Amino acid sequence: MSTENLTSERILEATEEVLRRYGPAKATVVDVARLLGVSHGSVYRHFRTKAALREAVTARWLRRTEVALAELTDGSPAPGPEKLRAWLLALFDSKRHKAGDDPELFATFSVLIDESSGVVEDHLAELTGQLTRIIDAGVRAGEFSADDPAEAAAAVFAATDRFHDPAHAPEWRRPTVEAEFTAVADLLLRGLRP
Amino acid sequence: MSTENLTSERILEATEEVLRRYGPAKATVVDVARLLGVSHGSVYRHFRTKAALREAVTARWLRRTEVALAELTDGSPAPGPEKLRAWLLALFDSKRHKAGDDPELFATFSVLIDESSGVVEDHLAELTGQLTRIIDAGVRAGEFSADDPAEAAAAVFAATDRFHDPAHAPEWRRPTVEAEFTAVADLLLRGLRP
Repeated sequence: MSTENLTSERILEATEEVLRRYGPAKATVVDVARLLGVSHGSVYRHFRTKAALREAVTARWLRRTEVALAELTDGSPAPGPEKLRAWLLALFDSKRHKAGDDPELFATFSVLIDESSGVVEDHLAELTGQLTRIIDAGVRAGEFSADDPAEAAAAVFAATDRFHDPAHAPEWRRPTVEAEFTAVADLLLRGLRP
Repeated sequence: MSTENLTSERILEATEEVLRRYGPAKATVVDVARLLGVSHGSVYRHFRTKAALREAVTARWLRRTEVALAELTDGSPAPGPEKLRAWLLALFDSKRHKAGDDPELFATFSVLIDESSGVVEDHLAELTGQLTRIIDAGVRAGEFSADDPAEAAAAVFAATDRFHDPAHAPEWRRPTVEAEFTAVADLLLRGLRP
């Protein structure tokens, strides 16, 4: 690839591929440059440090979930309770697929997430922000009752921890997990009733 | 100690002390016997294998929480919602104290818990059983609404995961965690309203 065609997005794609191949301990910026056929200096012109590159690729990985959920949050005409349930299920499905479909890459990103607390905070803020918009709209429409939609969103997010926090990934393969999710979602939706 | 005075309880106390001193990888049955001043054969007369001894000491450690909570469950005359909130807070406090007051022993038991799935299942069954009794009594008293108290108990237990699952122990030191607990408990209690 010529250096002129080198975009940040192309570098991040290659970085994810290198991480997949070599794992977080062994992957280097030189590997990324080699895969792209450019010098490592060209990579550093887009990402000034290896840490910055690792943070950016982690943010990109998390953003995929955010973008899919934002479509539900802002694009769906469903009533509040239905939208909230669908959003929580979509979050669970997104995390579960990431963990189950490509366990090695999931393990890799679990390592990267531990080094990128700022990126994770932004991700959690984006997700609870979306939840707040759903609850706020439901309160305005008389579908939900919540004194403080942001606080209610944080509580719903915390109460569904088992279904999105990577610490619980080993439990997501259990056959009962879907029923557990439904029972928790039912209870939370009852708690938001006017 | 003479072998005649050797009780299972005394062996378990000594085992906990040995685990505290040497950690789960290095602690041996010989260390336990030495601390008690008995032969290791005497220890094996009470616990037939090292694995059985480790399971028993883990069960004993978990039972302390169960016993404290059972007093609240069956001994308190408080109304259902108040009792449920106090029980969830007592569970959180118990786990938080175990993690915070003696982090090394907590880390040790986290290792033992990973080898003792049966013991952990019993512990979780005991705790959700207590929760079921609280919710069931509340339903009978017209304080709660739940089609299936056992299912509601499982949902409450799952939704408060962040406040009792050892996987979340690092988060229990955050200054906001009490407010998070209160927000989740409020929402769940609203969900159980008749």
